[in-house]
Amino acid sequence: MTGAAPRARLLSIGSELLAGETIDSNAAFLGRRLVGLGIALVGVQQLPDERETIAQAFADARAGAELVLATGGLGPTHDDLTREGLADALVEPLTPDPALEEQLRERFGRIGRMPPSNLRQALRIPSAEALDNPIGSAPGWWVDRDGCATALMPGVPSEMRRMFDEQVTPRLAARFGATPFGVCTVKTFGIGESAVAEMLGALLEEPGAGVTAGIYARDDGVHLRFTTRGALSDLDAPVRRCREALGEAIWGVDDDHLPEVALVRLARAGAATVASWEADTNGALLTALAGAEPADGAAAYVGGTLDAGGVTSAPLADAVIQLSLLPEDGHGRSRVRVAVSGAFQLAQTELRIHGSGDQRLRRAAFAALDQVRRSAGG
Amino acid sequence: MTGAAPRARLLSIGSELLAGETIDSNAAFLGRRLVGLGIALVGVQQLPDERETIAQAFADARAGAELVLATGGLGPTHDDLTREGLADALVEPLTPDPALEEQLRERFGRIGRMPPSNLRQALRIPSAEALDNPIGSAPGWWVDRDGCATALMPGVPSEMRRMFDEQVTPRLAARFGATPFGVCTVKTFGIGESAVAEMLGALLEEPGAGVTAGIYARDDGVHLRFTTRGALSDLDAPVRRCREALGEAIWGVDDDHLPEVALVRLARAGAATVASWEADTNGALLTALAGAEPADGAAAYVGGTLDAGGVTSAPLADAVIQLSLLPEDGHGRSRVRVAVSGAFQLAQTELRIHGSGDQRLRRAAFAALDQVRRSAGG
Repeated sequence: MTGAAPRARLLSIGSELLAGETIDSNAAFLGRRLVGLGIALVGVQQLPDERETIAQAFADARAGAELVLATGGLGPTHDDLTREGLADALVEPLTPDPALEEQLRERFGRIGRMPPSNLRQALRIPSAEALDNPIGSAPGWWVDRDGCATALMPGVPSEMRRMFDEQVTPRLAARFGATPFGVCTVKTFGIGESAVAEMLGALLEEPGAGVTAGIYARDDGVHLRFTTRGALSDLDAPVRRCREALGEAIWGVDDDHLPEVALVRLARAGAATVASWEADTNGALLTALAGAEPADGAAAYVGGTLDAGGVTSAPLADAVIQLSLLPEDGHGRSRVRVAVSGAFQLAQTELRIHGSGDQRLRRAAFAALDQVRRSAGG
Repeated sequence: MTGAAPRARLLSIGSELLAGETIDSNAAFLGRRLVGLGIALVGVQQLPDERETIAQAFADARAGAELVLATGGLGPTHDDLTREGLADALVEPLTPDPALEEQLRERFGRIGRMPPSNLRQALRIPSAEALDNPIGSAPGWWVDRDGCATALMPGVPSEMRRMFDEQVTPRLAARFGATPFGVCTVKTFGIGESAVAEMLGALLEEPGAGVTAGIYARDDGVHLRFTTRGALSDLDAPVRRCREALGEAIWGVDDDHLPEVALVRLARAGAATVASWEADTNGALLTALAGAEPADGAAAYVGGTLDAGGVTSAPLADAVIQLSLLPEDGHGRSRVRVAVSGAFQLAQTELRIHGSGDQRLRRAAFAALDQVRRSAGG
């Protein structure tokens, strides 16, 4: 990447993250948002609820970045120590803010009596500006000191996302005014990671001046990601090269999702509604299809049946996608059988899938959707 | 926590993690496993695919822990640099291992020609012992040097999990022989985090000698987590205190999942099969129920219908759980309507839910399942 993008570090705070009780989905959300803001996220850390550890992490992160974001540890209970950690790192006193206290009392006045512990959420250091939390009790903080901006946000994903989009983003735009990164992700299915890399020749090592390339094996296939800080059109050449080399294996780009792509293809093939029937996949197909965002031009997913308890009929729909996981062969290899009946039809097809456990089931669902996408045409 | 548990640090390597293209579910898996092994995970970091950054992170992590685990960056492509990073940190040369090369060729001999790039996966440093990967091309590494053990594992979750369980775990048991942590998690629904904390009085601050307590607001309710390095029975008193204070709000402990608890209650109430019907929740109920592990004594989930495209019938089942998200009231508050028809019946009930976006939908599903759990009795 060329140019000097502002560097950001993220601290995800909470012992539940280290204990594996919670998956840190906030980090991925913020990573995507920072790309759009032209800020380079150079490191993410998960930290326990320990005041000294948090304080040291803030000091270290602030020394190596122009922006430090933190999520979590702003709740009302004894193990919410993010406020204390940043106060220690900045050597500032933590005192009650009467305005914040008033806001909290007002919030609880609407929904019931305020537990005394919530008063901890009205504490503030002098250099912190409070960030409003319209859907939760934890206010955030914005601190801009010593050449480093720091934002504290709640760990609850819906509260964090809204606070980041409504309050942190405008401050970042004003503070950094960075040029957004240009990004294009090309998504494929049905070819392995090293085979894709080989088909692309030297493209991944030399994707063009100022362009960086990455390749990732995912449940929904191999993804190729090109990034630039220059003109978006710098990505045209590498993306065109992917299309030439990989052809029909490419099912989408950027924010495309395979279930949505399959539902669009089925709509074009004449099915306004789609249902699913699956056996031995523990609902992987139904879960993938239910997660598809309803969209114009896509068939509506109306539900599905798991082959359990002797029930075998799917909900009424124009097309029914059928998926069965076949028993492993002698070499531990798995295959699935896919078919579609109704307004659009696909004869029974067998496909090989890789992986084990839940991942194998998710891949079985994506293999079925990829087959539907290919057979239902453009 | 008392006693000196071995300290572990985890490095999750891959620019796709920082770009938010991938959620780091490996960290949560390893966090849970280390608890069971009595090893304290004191920090997790996500790093980009940059050789110098990786080398520095290995050096720093090894200086502050008895165990360093790393996932990712062992693939065959140009941006897989974990091997190089650790080699640099240890100042050891990276040379081809003929035995590993032979294993790779054998693997590809079974499934097709080996791309030349895969030869990078046969590189090794002198102090590394290779860890077999029976379901992928990337071997892992085990290095025990200078008082710190380091294990490199693939980033693909199924490969990482199998390698950790089959090859890293026995080495950790032999190397550290640590006493597993005792953990009990109490799971509730229907009471807010600060109200739960208040109902428990001083329990969370003083859960007993050698016991630590945490409280977490999750989509499936507020969880209380008690941990000890002493006797498991040290957790009996705080857990009993939770039961006394929170009563019927508690729906489970430890690995219990609310969908499974609801399916067990429905089976006891006479329903062998369960289906779902939902409106305006984008399949949240269906997704939660499909994710339930089939279990003895639980009703079988046979599928569900989304109210889309005019289809309103659910698959045939003994009981049908019905869920509708009601329009927000004037204050932005959400309610759901829940009912069950069939062998077990629940009259229409309205419940308030919190949150926004996808989280609100997931909470709507959990509110429905909690209501089913309460009304279907013990």
